[in-house]
Amino acid sequence: MRKNLGRREKVLDLLYQAEGNYLSGEELSNKLGVSRTTIWKYIKYLREAGYHIDSSSKIGYRLITPADNLLPEEIKRNLNTDVIGQKIIYYKEIESTNDAAKKLAQSGLKEGTIVVSEEQKKGKGRLGREFCSPLGGIWISCILRPDIKPTLATRATYIASLAIVKTINKLSDVDANIKWPNDILVGDKKVSGILTEMGAELDRVDYLVVGMGINLNFTLDSFDKSLHNKVTTIYHETGKKISRVKFVQVLLEEIEAIYQKLNDFEDILEEWKEYSYTIGKKVQVESSKEKVSGTAIDIASDGALIVKVGNEIRKFYSGEVSLGHSNFSSGN
Amino acid sequence: MRKNLGRREKVLDLLYQAEGNYLSGEELSNKLGVSRTTIWKYIKYLREAGYHIDSSSKIGYRLITPADNLLPEEIKRNLNTDVIGQKIIYYKEIESTNDAAKKLAQSGLKEGTIVVSEEQKKGKGRLGREFCSPLGGIWISCILRPDIKPTLATRATYIASLAIVKTINKLSDVDANIKWPNDILVGDKKVSGILTEMGAELDRVDYLVVGMGINLNFTLDSFDKSLHNKVTTIYHETGKKISRVKFVQVLLEEIEAIYQKLNDFEDILEEWKEYSYTIGKKVQVESSKEKVSGTAIDIASDGALIVKVGNEIRKFYSGEVSLGHSNFSSGN
Repeated sequence: MRKNLGRREKVLDLLYQAEGNYLSGEELSNKLGVSRTTIWKYIKYLREAGYHIDSSSKIGYRLITPADNLLPEEIKRNLNTDVIGQKIIYYKEIESTNDAAKKLAQSGLKEGTIVVSEEQKKGKGRLGREFCSPLGGIWISCILRPDIKPTLATRATYIASLAIVKTINKLSDVDANIKWPNDILVGDKKVSGILTEMGAELDRVDYLVVGMGINLNFTLDSFDKSLHNKVTTIYHETGKKISRVKFVQVLLEEIEAIYQKLNDFEDILEEWKEYSYTIGKKVQVESSKEKVSGTAIDIASDGALIVKVGNEIRKFYSGEVSLGHSNFSSGN
Repeated sequence: MRKNLGRREKVLDLLYQAEGNYLSGEELSNKLGVSRTTIWKYIKYLREAGYHIDSSSKIGYRLITPADNLLPEEIKRNLNTDVIGQKIIYYKEIESTNDAAKKLAQSGLKEGTIVVSEEQKKGKGRLGREFCSPLGGIWISCILRPDIKPTLATRATYIASLAIVKTINKLSDVDANIKWPNDILVGDKKVSGILTEMGAELDRVDYLVVGMGINLNFTLDSFDKSLHNKVTTIYHETGKKISRVKFVQVLLEEIEAIYQKLNDFEDILEEWKEYSYTIGKKVQVESSKEKVSGTAIDIASDGALIVKVGNEIRKFYSGEVSLGHSNFSSGN
């Protein structure tokens, strides 16, 4: 898939295709129909973005080491989607990808638009909590515009959590699970979180912004010591770094595949349950009103957590869930 | 209440207080601690806004005829609220006050902030419909930030419709009623509509923007002929114009009073039902899925319309409601 690459952006693609061999400035210039100055400027931009590119005035340019950053042209080079990620807004750093995506959504940007940043300076978790987002992780927000009522917006969190857990399990050696409603765990430690926000009329969603944070290629040093028993990173768990570009590509492809089943939510839920860390466990659910203990027995078709509290069956639509005696509500 | 008027804005207030007598530039300048140039610039601004102000180089300025526009300083001069309308963003014309208010809410503006425009160029009704908003009407959006879940956001529409109907009935001779969920009628014709939009996480509202449009001091000529049996204006009904400033002041005061009862929604609903045009009538409710006929018998405590369909009692949370054989769903 080479669609939607700008002429200038094809430079990177051609360098990859040359597989370490030199491409002359003239050749690039002719192939793309842009000036050699444009080529040179783009090479400079790539170098600043961390690519090692050798150049020789006689023989041209060759790519020695790619940078594992999330430039749109990197993500789109081998992205196999029709909608999700077909437009990518990239930041080296930003306060919050969700805030940026909400603004873009409000200004009319299309479904599938992605905001990605190498790091977030004010990453947000649910209820305004801080979300640690250093270099090496995946911090990405996706604009969706489903034709649904606001009450069904929670489905987006199911789609994202399922897509993330499948991507992690596909690309790493860990066995990740989902803690209802929106955390991804490795063992009993959080490795990813989701923050879904919406703009809506009372009757219909205008846009959803699904923010996803994945602790990928960095160590626990980024977290406060007090959180080390609650959070982890894929790198900490496996000792291996994963291509961040590849991770985003697979993630976007998973999102697109699952999102197509939005109106068959039972199907999504069935698959989701296979990864549930919560069902079958003793839980404490804490809402603004109360705190109850029981056993999580299922997820209802409307996305509620079904908990057996004493002899009573109760449904919860939100709230902090603690499993056993550990509390996962804080941290990241 | 003279709170929150800027120094410059007190010029208008002092002109009113002088009751048609002259105030010298020097006196104004001394009283407000601003230069005479600043005074002069503000007089110029008021004249451009439609005020007739007489000036004489020897004796100063006097207000001959006020302009019935919605300048913030006009609205705030005698506004008896603590929160609602304490900040007012004013436009002579704008595409949509709701769109502007949403942007302001997202950038963090406080609860109670009002966006008001003399006219809207792209006024919006529910589901993206056009909303005719000419000069002479009231086009206003209010930012609220209640600490509630998105599922309760519908309460804002009840608050606004109750506030509007009470304001209309207080200031004019008509007997307005509310057609569920969000239209105000005089007789069987629409005189006002409400569009509530929200920004939210799945668990909590970030902001609500309650857009209110009231057909006040203009004729039916602004509407397409095909709508003349469906819409009306207060001026058309009574032949009298109402002070738009007064209307907005009373409206904001009503909103504040009712909004304070947000968590005692049953109380709001009880009062709301006194103005209901829908309850007790034969209705057709049309949703995306179906169209049913029955009799509207009540509003449930969660805001749903309760309809007796044959022998069945059903609840509707949204949808187009037609009364008898007329259909009010289109137009404004």
